[in-house]
Amino acid sequence: MTGTLYGVGVGPGDPGLLTLKGRDVLLRAAAVFVPAPGEGKPSLAMGIVREAGLGGLDFRPLVFPMSRDEKVLAASWDAAAARVCDVLRDGKDAAFITLGDPGVYSTFSYLAAAVRRRLQGVRIETVPGVTTMNLAAALVNRPLVEGDERLCLLPLPEDLGELGALARSFDTLVLYKIGPRLREAVEALTRLGLARSSSFVGRAGLPDQIVAPELGDIPGDAAGYLSALIVRTGRTA
Amino acid sequence: MTGTLYGVGVGPGDPGLLTLKGRDVLLRAAAVFVPAPGEGKPSLAMGIVREAGLGGLDFRPLVFPMSRDEKVLAASWDAAAARVCDVLRDGKDAAFITLGDPGVYSTFSYLAAAVRRRLQGVRIETVPGVTTMNLAAALVNRPLVEGDERLCLLPLPEDLGELGALARSFDTLVLYKIGPRLREAVEALTRLGLARSSSFVGRAGLPDQIVAPELGDIPGDAAGYLSALIVRTGRTA
Repeated sequence: MTGTLYGVGVGPGDPGLLTLKGRDVLLRAAAVFVPAPGEGKPSLAMGIVREAGLGGLDFRPLVFPMSRDEKVLAASWDAAAARVCDVLRDGKDAAFITLGDPGVYSTFSYLAAAVRRRLQGVRIETVPGVTTMNLAAALVNRPLVEGDERLCLLPLPEDLGELGALARSFDTLVLYKIGPRLREAVEALTRLGLARSSSFVGRAGLPDQIVAPELGDIPGDAAGYLSALIVRTGRTA
Repeated sequence: MTGTLYGVGVGPGDPGLLTLKGRDVLLRAAAVFVPAPGEGKPSLAMGIVREAGLGGLDFRPLVFPMSRDEKVLAASWDAAAARVCDVLRDGKDAAFITLGDPGVYSTFSYLAAAVRRRLQGVRIETVPGVTTMNLAAALVNRPLVEGDERLCLLPLPEDLGELGALARSFDTLVLYKIGPRLREAVEALTRLGLARSSSFVGRAGLPDQIVAPELGDIPGDAAGYLSALIVRTGRTA
């Protein structure tokens, strides 16, 4: 009997947003694999789990090279899968933690696919988590969608002119992966007349979070991890 | 000092998906208000909280009339707010529970607005929750969005022909509020060539959940509460 691989979403930064099931699965797992940004660099997801009172787990960092070369990436996922499969073949359960939810812009699906290729019929279960947009909306005290409203979620588009068309079709736009383009995005929203009904949250849930219910004086470098722009378009008004 | 009103998302059906913070807030609240579908009818959200081991809370059902008349609805929200404010004025905290997340198609924003009108400067905090789409994607073992993909979330449109245009612009469509139109929706997706890459989950997280990774023999009446169609469009393929 091989063990089960669990993909656990630890939520968007606030350790209190880990779910009861997520906590229980992590406590039972023989090993907790952690995507690490680089050798010796701290993992945000691991920090959240530690803050949630689970510092004693057997954390095992998986370091992935900073590369866009698909062959390099595939090889590193395969190497990670080999380490995970060593645990599963011993009949023990393994967990892989992701920020937010494993189904929303996470890397769990790549790991799961690589594990499936090595270990046919392996049991894989996803434990969903709270996502950044849900916490961001909570922090600015505004709903994401009500009644018949429509929402779209996307990485900040290359062509910011697209935001105008999206605003005509959706009541709420949620923009992730803003990175160094926050200032540029705010300028585009201002030109479209949408800045006043937009909010920004950066490093949601972390002690140094930035909560801007209105886009005013946001530092240009505020959009690191766990960041979102939420645009209420007033489409139906 | 008036108390704080907490809007707590209890997640999409599986009691294990309540967050640690949600549980703690509910345990500390003097009263837990529950939207009830009708006099004497059980509340799904309350059932989830009870299953999570919190059966001893002081649950107080708020019954809202089945009406689309805005005046009738406003009066019932105001009456509900009056009951909540009685607790807050005593300096005690109150909670209002919603399925999923309070910011996603919930009624918490209406209650919060009515409470704010009665009690200026009142402290209101939202505790986000896991949403149905995150659990549905986990149950069918597919990510919602990866890499640069785009997602839209909307109630099943009146005009199902709209789905074709949305599928050209988004990698994932998530359709809520399907109700009695599940069969009709599956037929429309079939005509658009999207049925094979679509999944359906009904009553997500509940003991009698329906998980259909491919749209086959789904009972036509399967789409009650906590239901979603997830359409992967293959737009970028």
